[in-house]
Amino acid sequence: MHTFRESRPTLEAVAAHAGVSRATVSRVVNGGPGVREEIREKVRNSVEELGYVPNNAARTLVTRRTGAVAVVIAEPESRVFADPFFAQQLRGISRELADHDTQLLLMMLERQKDYARIGRYLSAGHVDGALMFSLHGDDPLPAMARRSGLPAVFGGRPGWPGAEEEADLLYVDTDNRDGARQAVAHLQERGRRTIAVINGPLDQTSALDRLHGYCDALGVGVHEANRSLVAQGDFTAEGGERAMARLLDAAPSLDAVFAGNDLMASGALRTLRARGRRVPEDVAVVGYDDLEPAAWASPPLTTVRQDVEGMGGMMAELLLRRIGLAVGTDAAPPAPVITPATLVVRESS
Amino acid sequence: MHTFRESRPTLEAVAAHAGVSRATVSRVVNGGPGVREEIREKVRNSVEELGYVPNNAARTLVTRRTGAVAVVIAEPESRVFADPFFAQQLRGISRELADHDTQLLLMMLERQKDYARIGRYLSAGHVDGALMFSLHGDDPLPAMARRSGLPAVFGGRPGWPGAEEEADLLYVDTDNRDGARQAVAHLQERGRRTIAVINGPLDQTSALDRLHGYCDALGVGVHEANRSLVAQGDFTAEGGERAMARLLDAAPSLDAVFAGNDLMASGALRTLRARGRRVPEDVAVVGYDDLEPAAWASPPLTTVRQDVEGMGGMMAELLLRRIGLAVGTDAAPPAPVITPATLVVRESS
Repeated sequence: MHTFRESRPTLEAVAAHAGVSRATVSRVVNGGPGVREEIREKVRNSVEELGYVPNNAARTLVTRRTGAVAVVIAEPESRVFADPFFAQQLRGISRELADHDTQLLLMMLERQKDYARIGRYLSAGHVDGALMFSLHGDDPLPAMARRSGLPAVFGGRPGWPGAEEEADLLYVDTDNRDGARQAVAHLQERGRRTIAVINGPLDQTSALDRLHGYCDALGVGVHEANRSLVAQGDFTAEGGERAMARLLDAAPSLDAVFAGNDLMASGALRTLRARGRRVPEDVAVVGYDDLEPAAWASPPLTTVRQDVEGMGGMMAELLLRRIGLAVGTDAAPPAPVITPATLVVRESS
Repeated sequence: MHTFRESRPTLEAVAAHAGVSRATVSRVVNGGPGVREEIREKVRNSVEELGYVPNNAARTLVTRRTGAVAVVIAEPESRVFADPFFAQQLRGISRELADHDTQLLLMMLERQKDYARIGRYLSAGHVDGALMFSLHGDDPLPAMARRSGLPAVFGGRPGWPGAEEEADLLYVDTDNRDGARQAVAHLQERGRRTIAVINGPLDQTSALDRLHGYCDALGVGVHEANRSLVAQGDFTAEGGERAMARLLDAAPSLDAVFAGNDLMASGALRTLRARGRRVPEDVAVVGYDDLEPAAWASPPLTTVRQDVEGMGGMMAELLLRRIGLAVGTDAAPPAPVITPATLVVRESS
């Protein structure tokens, strides 16, 4: 019986076993021409008998294909597993990749120095391409991908300096600014006068665009917004809880709040309940995403729906097209996609 | 400005740029001997200038090290992201790997045919080793790892035929049988007479061992257990909900239930509430794992604690030792680890 200690059989071992040269084994294994069928047969038998698996290190040198795509989420695992946004997006990605027999490798970032390590792995020929999301403003990953020439698609509009000039940049996003505008316009239509906002991290374009949408609806510039109505969150429920408390302290008469995602909105609901404010009678609440936390919240959340799973699928499709593993429905080259955002009205507003 | 379309600079380009041979570049890049310092300097400059990143395909042929370890969870993503057990175990693994500058690559299995693809990737030299968990009885992954000679460590006692004879097999588990025995003994001490059990999938040793522990406490063999008190679940909350309903139909007089994990126990709580049974007055409930769902349940769950994060860390450590990237505290070779299980009593019993 084989044990885990045994090292894997080498190309040399196969060559010796089959009584042929190393080059011949290599040619048979990698599907090269110029080897007689009886020799091929011999090599295949030896490969079978020794349990030889062609080292992709070698195979990659020839085909430059690994059959795997990296999905890099620039967040620690604790956040990735706590926010259903990521699970949903991964579901869409994984389905699309599986349809093209491509393996998903998920990488998350626990610490600052993980960037260098992930960059090394991505540059080293172990993957055919990368999907990156939840990037922050100064994220080094896009530059790493660029330097290595690795095909990449981004989740969310890239926000790094110079991103707009990169003609070939591929990304999938939703119309965050319009979504936020719809949310705040809805609150205005319901007669709300003092509408606060809880932002996600403003080094992410999704959070920044939603803040712009909030300001659009109020008819003010971002720097003219009433500061006591703007609180900073971090896309977590706990962050929403704390931000809501600060808002109530700074502007006790507020009658509505728009939160940059459903998790922060559900945190805000907890604070409002603890402070004895009724939702929606005293304070209306609107979230963003329309994932489970919105439907499970009490009361269920009015929110802005984005098709997170579908966007994941589109990211994967764009990447597969760029790599050459998939073709689009028309002859046009792959291009960025912006999906629409839709208001979903429930009991919280 | 570089764009994503550009292909990565090749070894040949560096050689041409530096005015040296391909072999010389290779030797410098891979740290080989016999190259004068001024030539090394020249090559390093060209590498820098062209933004060349050594293709690990080539590098791996020399060093056989990739700096990455695969974590394979033999479950679909929807389950991985719904069960905090996986997040917790990954946290332990990722911390330990990061301490040894090793990248975690997470792979999940959506469909049956993913096995072959994952097997190919693992065998192909893209990773230094693999951690595998949530394996089912007939799982092909261990055989794939064995054939490829890839160092591997398993989460949970391996259950495939012949596993016990594999002297070098490494795994980390908790004493599931003893944990279950403690849980049921506790219910007996509280005066419960009719104790039901909700099993996890019995093609997983963790679930099977817990069923054996239940039977031990009742003093019966597994095939002698009262069938109307044994229900099959699948480690999900929904599975627990359904199993509890079947138990109440088959044995309306039951006064306690031991569920194979906290998620199933929290599903059981929902069914009991819906059927008007008070917990613990009418029916006592005990879970297994002691993760968030246990503390958040209403009432909070009595459960069997296993140190899931610590076990993840141990798996990673064993693998790093086997690969040769870490050393143990003593000279002994790495060996399987069984951690103790501890009963945690809360309001549900």
